[in-house]
Amino acid sequence: MIQVGIIGGTGYVGAELVRLLSNHNKVHISGISSVQYKGKSLSSIYTGFYKINELICESQQDVVEKSDLIFLALPSGLSQAIIEKAVQKNKICIDMGADFRFKNEDLYKKWYGRDFINHDLHQQSVYGLPELNREHIRKSQIIGNPGCYATSVELALLPLISGNLIEKKGIIADCKSGITGSGKNLTESSHFVNCNENFSAYKVVNHRHTPEIEETLSNVCRENVKLTFIPHLIPINRGILSTVYTTPKDTIDLKSIYKKYCEFYKNEYFVKVLPLGEVSKISNVRLSNYCHISLHYDEDNNKLVIISCLDNMIKGSAGQGIQNMNIVLGFSEKEGLAALPAVF
Amino acid sequence: MIQVGIIGGTGYVGAELVRLLSNHNKVHISGISSVQYKGKSLSSIYTGFYKINELICESQQDVVEKSDLIFLALPSGLSQAIIEKAVQKNKICIDMGADFRFKNEDLYKKWYGRDFINHDLHQQSVYGLPELNREHIRKSQIIGNPGCYATSVELALLPLISGNLIEKKGIIADCKSGITGSGKNLTESSHFVNCNENFSAYKVVNHRHTPEIEETLSNVCRENVKLTFIPHLIPINRGILSTVYTTPKDTIDLKSIYKKYCEFYKNEYFVKVLPLGEVSKISNVRLSNYCHISLHYDEDNNKLVIISCLDNMIKGSAGQGIQNMNIVLGFSEKEGLAALPAVF
Amino acid sequence: MIQVGIIGGTGYVGAELVRLLSNHNKVHISGISSVQYKGKSLSSIYTGFYKINELICESQQDVVEKSDLIFLALPSGLSQAIIEKAVQKNKICIDMGADFRFKNEDLYKKWYGRDFINHDLHQQSVYGLPELNREHIRKSQIIGNPGCYATSVELALLPLISGNLIEKKGIIADCKSGITGSGKNLTESSHFVNCNENFSAYKVVNHRHTPEIEETLSNVCRENVKLTFIPHLIPINRGILSTVYTTPKDTIDLKSIYKKYCEFYKNEYFVKVLPLGEVSKISNVRLSNYCHISLHYDEDNNKLVIISCLDNMIKGSAGQGIQNMNIVLGFSEKEGLAALPAVF
Amino acid sequence: MIQVGIIGGTGYVGAELVRLLSNHNKVHISGISSVQYKGKSLSSIYTGFYKINELICESQQDVVEKSDLIFLALPSGLSQAIIEKAVQKNKICIDMGADFRFKNEDLYKKWYGRDFINHDLHQQSVYGLPELNREHIRKSQIIGNPGCYATSVELALLPLISGNLIEKKGIIADCKSGITGSGKNLTESSHFVNCNENFSAYKVVNHRHTPEIEETLSNVCRENVKLTFIPHLIPINRGILSTVYTTPKDTIDLKSIYKKYCEFYKNEYFVKVLPLGEVSKISNVRLSNYCHISLHYDEDNNKLVIISCLDNMIKGSAGQGIQNMNIVLGFSEKEGLAALPAVF
Repeated sequence: MIQVGIIGGTGYVGAELVRLLSNHNKVHISGISSVQYKGKSLSSIYTGFYKINELICESQQDVVEKSDLIFLALPSGLSQAIIEKAVQKNKICIDMGADFRFKNEDLYKKWYGRDFINHDLHQQSVYGLPELNREHIRKSQIIGNPGCYATSVELALLPLISGNLIEKKGIIADCKSGITGSGKNLTESSHFVNCNENFSAYKVVNHRHTPEIEETLSNVCRENVKLTFIPHLIPINRGILSTVYTTPKDTIDLKSIYKKYCEFYKNEYFVKVLPLGEVSKISNVRLSNYCHISLHYDEDNNKLVIISCLDNMIKGSAGQGIQNMNIVLGFSEKEGLAALPAVF
Repeated sequence: MIQVGIIGGTGYVGAELVRLLSNHNKVHISGISSVQYKGKSLSSIYTGFYKINELICESQQDVVEKSDLIFLALPSGLSQAIIEKAVQKNKICIDMGADFRFKNEDLYKKWYGRDFINHDLHQQSVYGLPELNREHIRKSQIIGNPGCYATSVELALLPLISGNLIEKKGIIADCKSGITGSGKNLTESSHFVNCNENFSAYKVVNHRHTPEIEETLSNVCRENVKLTFIPHLIPINRGILSTVYTTPKDTIDLKSIYKKYCEFYKNEYFVKVLPLGEVSKISNVRLSNYCHISLHYDEDNNKLVIISCLDNMIKGSAGQGIQNMNIVLGFSEKEGLAALPAVF
Repeated sequence: MIQVGIIGGTGYVGAELVRLLSNHNKVHISGISSVQYKGKSLSSIYTGFYKINELICESQQDVVEKSDLIFLALPSGLSQAIIEKAVQKNKICIDMGADFRFKNEDLYKKWYGRDFINHDLHQQSVYGLPELNREHIRKSQIIGNPGCYATSVELALLPLISGNLIEKKGIIADCKSGITGSGKNLTESSHFVNCNENFSAYKVVNHRHTPEIEETLSNVCRENVKLTFIPHLIPINRGILSTVYTTPKDTIDLKSIYKKYCEFYKNEYFVKVLPLGEVSKISNVRLSNYCHISLHYDEDNNKLVIISCLDNMIKGSAGQGIQNMNIVLGFSEKEGLAALPAVF
Repeated sequence: MIQVGIIGGTGYVGAELVRLLSNHNKVHISGISSVQYKGKSLSSIYTGFYKINELICESQQDVVEKSDLIFLALPSGLSQAIIEKAVQKNKICIDMGADFRFKNEDLYKKWYGRDFINHDLHQQSVYGLPELNREHIRKSQIIGNPGCYATSVELALLPLISGNLIEKKGIIADCKSGITGSGKNLTESSHFVNCNENFSAYKVVNHRHTPEIEETLSNVCRENVKLTFIPHLIPINRGILSTVYTTPKDTIDLKSIYKKYCEFYKNEYFVKVLPLGEVSKISNVRLSNYCHISLHYDEDNNKLVIISCLDNMIKGSAGQGIQNMNIVLGFSEKEGLAALPAVF
C-alpha cells in the first residue's frame, strides 16, 4: 500500500480527500496535518466521520515523514517551502493550491503577491490537468492541481483552442459556483441568510483563475488567449457551471464541432460530451469526478457557446487530485473515483 | 375607486397582482376570471389568502364588464380577441403576456406562431417599459407589459444603446432566473428534486425574449441591435440577475459611464444605479419593484459588463404592470409598490 | 406623526422594523442607534435599502431624545437600564428582547443570568401578546415583546389552556425555525454549507423560550403548565412551524374543539384557524403578520395535535412589535401590517 | 458474479439501487425492467448516467429470468404476484415496497386495501431490518425492506422497547423528510415553488408507516406499542430526521441509557450512537448508509428524547436493500455501502 498524507487536512479540500481516499483500494492515508487542530480528530470537526474515520491531526513534518505521496491543501503561498523539502526526500507532491499552477512567475507574483522560492521546483512541476498533460503528470514529482473554475473553462475550450477554431481574444466565461467554493471560513458571503434565495457575482473581472486559464490556454496554442471571466455564487453546496461564449473564425457547422469534441475527448473517461440538443446541468455531475460539456450555436450572431459543469470539490479539486495521483502512481485513473453522480 | 379586473387570475402573475393590488389605495379589485377554477375562490388555490382575500373566480365577460381597467394574465395568443372587445367598451387593457410586446408582426409570428388579429390595436398599443415609454403609456389604452428577462436586459442596456456607446452586435446576455419564472404548472423542470442543488441553462439561444429585446433596443437607436441570450435556472423562488457583456466603441472611463447611467435614470425611482465597486444581487431587490444595476469594466479586454437584477414577479411582471397602471391612471408611480426589498 | 426610534437598529430585528415601519402611515422613524455602526448608514449594512432608506446610525441617547416611542432590539440584559431612563422621560418602550418577558425574577435569573434592576418597571410592564393581553397593552408604557417560538406555541395552546381542555403536564412542542432566527452573526451554525441540505435540533430541552411559554400559560390557567420544547433549524430564511402534542382530558370531538378555536380567535385578524382537514404551512404566512393554526386528532392515542406557523421576523418579532405599537397608540392593528403573505 | 435484477428500475429507488450496485464488487446488474420505459435506456431518464450506465429497460419476465436475486421497486400491491413466481424459480426477492412489511394481513388490508395473495409467502418472508432480524434475513428467500420513516423510528426505539424501559403507549414520533421521499411523480407537493422556503406536515396521524412501526415494535416486546406519528417535508433532497418522545417507566440516568444503546448497537456498523451532548443531523449521514442516534433527557418532565437520522434513499431504502442482499448472499455487509457521508 502506498502511504498518502494530507497537509492541511481540515479544510474542505482536505476533508474531501479523506472522504474519497477512504474508499481507494491502493493507497492508505498515512496521516493528516493541521496547525489549528493538532491533536484533535478530524471527526471532531466533521462529526459525520464519527467512528468511520478517526484520524488525529499531526504536525506537517510527521505526516510528510511517513508518506510516499503528499497532498497539500493549504492557503496559497504555504506550499512551496514544504514541497521543496519533501521533494528532497523523494516524496511525490500534489499541491491543491495555486503555488504550482503557474509557469510564469510574474503572473503568479501579480495575482498572488509572492515569488517562486526555487525555480527548479517550478521547472520540474506540471499543471495537473490530466486531459492536457497526462504524460507529463506520469513523470512528475510535483503536480499543481488546477483551480476549480479553471478546470471547467479549460475543458470547455481545449478542443477549440488546440484546433485553432475560434478567436483567441474576446472569450467570455460566465461561471457559477456552489458555496463550498468559498471554503469553511465564516464570512458574510457564506452566511446562510446572505446566500439563500440569492444570486450574485463576485470578484468581477478580478478573479485569480483568469490568469491561470489564460496561461494554460495560451501555452496550448502559443498565442495570447484572453478572456473576460465573471464568477457568480449559486445557493447550492457543490457544483460549477461555466457558460463560455466564443466567436468561431468562420461560420461553423455545429455537428462537425461536436465530432471534434468527441474525438478530442474520446479516451477521457471523465469528460462526457453530451449529444447535441442536450444541456449540461450540475445535478448530473454532483458528487462525481465527471465533467459534462454541451455545445450550442447562435447562428445569427456566430457565437459558439460551450456549457461545462463539474463538481467543484471533486473534478474541480479533490477528485482531480486523486486522478493525478492515480496517473503518477500508475493506477487505473478510475480507482477511488468510480462513484456515479448522485443525480438526486 | 377605479375598478380593476384580472383576466386569468389564478396563475402566478394573477395571484401576484392580487397580492399587490390588495394594498393599493386607489383601486379596487373588481373581480378575477379563470376558466379552470370558475366558481372557486382564489384562496382555495393559494391557501395563504384564506380569509384575507376570498375573491371567487368568474367568467372573463363578467370581469371585463365591471372593470375600468383589466390586466390580462393569459398564455400568449389569448389576449388579442379579449382586448379587441374591451377596448370598444373603453376599458384600459394591460396585457401581461406577449401579444402586445411586438410591433413587428413577422417577429411575433415567427416566435409565437400567430398573426396580429387587428393591426389597429397594435398601432394603439405601447410597450410598457416606463423608463422608456412613460409618455406614450400615459396616453395608451393598450399596454403590452414587457417580459421579465427583457426588462432586466433592456434596463441594463438602455443608457448605452441610446448613448451610442457600444457595438450593437455581439452583445451577450447571460441571464439567471428563479423558478417562479416557469410558472405554476407541474413539469419535470419545476420538480423540486430536479431544481434543488442544481443549476442549468434552458432554451439556449432560443428564448422568445431575444427578439423582444432586440426589437425594443433597435427601435431606440434605429440600428439593428443583436444579442446572444442564454437563460439559466437558479434554485430560488424569485429573482432575475442578468450579466450583460458589451464592447464599448472606444476604450472608456468607467466613471464617466457611471455618470451617464446616473443621469439617464435620475428620475427613475425604481432603478438604482449602484456606486462603482458594488455588485447587484437578487436579495437586494427581492419582493420589491426595484431594479439594481451595477457597472464593471474589463480593461484588458475592453468589455463593459452590466449586472442588473430585479424580482421577476414584481418589476419583471405584476409590479411593472401596476406601475403602468399608475401611470395611465395618473397616480403616483409608487402607489402600491412602496414595499422595501425583503433583504432577508 | 408619532416619532418612533429604534435602539439597536442594525440586527435583523432592527432592520425588519425599519422595513415595515417605512410603509406605516401614522409614524415616522425618528432615528436608529447602533454602537458598532455609529455614523454609518443602515444601507451600508443592508445594501438593498440603498437610496430608499438612508438613515444614519446615531447614539442611543440621541434616538431616545427625539422619539415618542422606542423599540429596543438588543441582546438580553441591555434594555432595562435604557428603559428605566426612557420611562422617566415619558417615552413608550417596546422591548424586542427578553428583559420584560418574565414576571418571575427567579426564572429570568435562572435562564438569563441577571437580576431585575427595578421591580417597578416589571410591575408596570406587560407581556406583549395582543391575543392575550390587548387591554393591558393598551395602557402600558413598557411592553415585553414575546419570543418567536413562544408566540407560535402560545397561540397554539391558549384556547386549550384557558378552556381547561388538556392535561397541563406532558405537553410536547416540536418546533422548527428558519435561519434568520439565529441572527446576523457569523457562526458555524449559520454557515450556508452547514445549514443547506441539512436539518437538525439544537438546544435540546434547554431553550430559553421554554420558561417563557410555561410562565405565560401557567398565568392563564393558574396551574403549573409544563412542556418539553425542542427547536430545530430548517434551511430556509424565515418561518416557524410548531407541532404541539397535547393530551385531552377526555376523548374529544375535533369539530367542537375547532369551534372553540374559532370562537376564541374570532376577533383576532392575524390568527387564522384553518378549516379541519387543512394543514398549516410556512409558505402561507411568509412575509406577513399572520399566524395559521390547524387542528388534528389522533383518536387511537387520544392526542390532540395543533400545528401553528408564523413568520419569525414578523408575527414572531417586528410585526408583533408594531402590532403592539398600534394598540398602545390607538391605531388600527393592521396599520403597516396589511401585506398579504408572499405565497411564492 | 451473482446476477441481480431490478423490477421497476426507473423510479428513485430503482435508480438509487443502480447507482449503488454499480460499485458493488460481488454482484452484476443483470437487467432492469420498466413498463413505461421499456426499450429505453435508464440514462435517457437520469441523464447523469450518460455513458456510465447504459442499461436498457426490459420486461419484468426477462429480468427475472436472468437474475439470481431481484429487487422489486414497485407501487404497493404489485410485488406479490411477481414474487410468487420468482420464488418458484428459486430467485431471492427483496421487495422495496410495502407488500411484505406486514405479518398481520388485517393491518395490511386496512392501510393498503389489499389481501395477501398467498399466505405461505408471507410466512417465509422476513422484515428486512438487519439490526433486528439479521439471522432470519440470512435464511430467507423473501425480504420485505422496511419503510424509510419506519427504519428511523424503529432504530431509535429498539433498545428501549426491547429493554422494557419506556411506556408502550403515548410515544410521539415527529418526523421530517426530504422531498425525494415523495418520489419522481409530478405533484403539487413536489413543485419547487411549493417546497422551497416552506415546511409543512402531511398525512397527519394518517401515514402508512404508523402501523408498520407499531407492528414491528409490538412483536419485539409482545405488548401493544402505540405511537402518534406525524411526517413533515423539509426543502432538501435527501434525509430523514425523527424526533421521538418517550416516557421512561422510572426516572432515568441518561448515562445508563446511553450505555444500553451502545451495548445494543455495538456490532452494528451502520448505526452510530452519538456521545451524550451531541445532536444527530442529516448532513452527517447524507449519501451514506449510516444512521445516527442521539439521546436527550428532559428531567423536569421525565421525557426521554431520541433523535435519529439517516438518508431516506440509502439506509431508508436502497442501501438497506443492499445490506439485506449482502446478508442473504453471505457478503460483508459493508460491500458497496462503504461511502463516507458527504458531509458538505
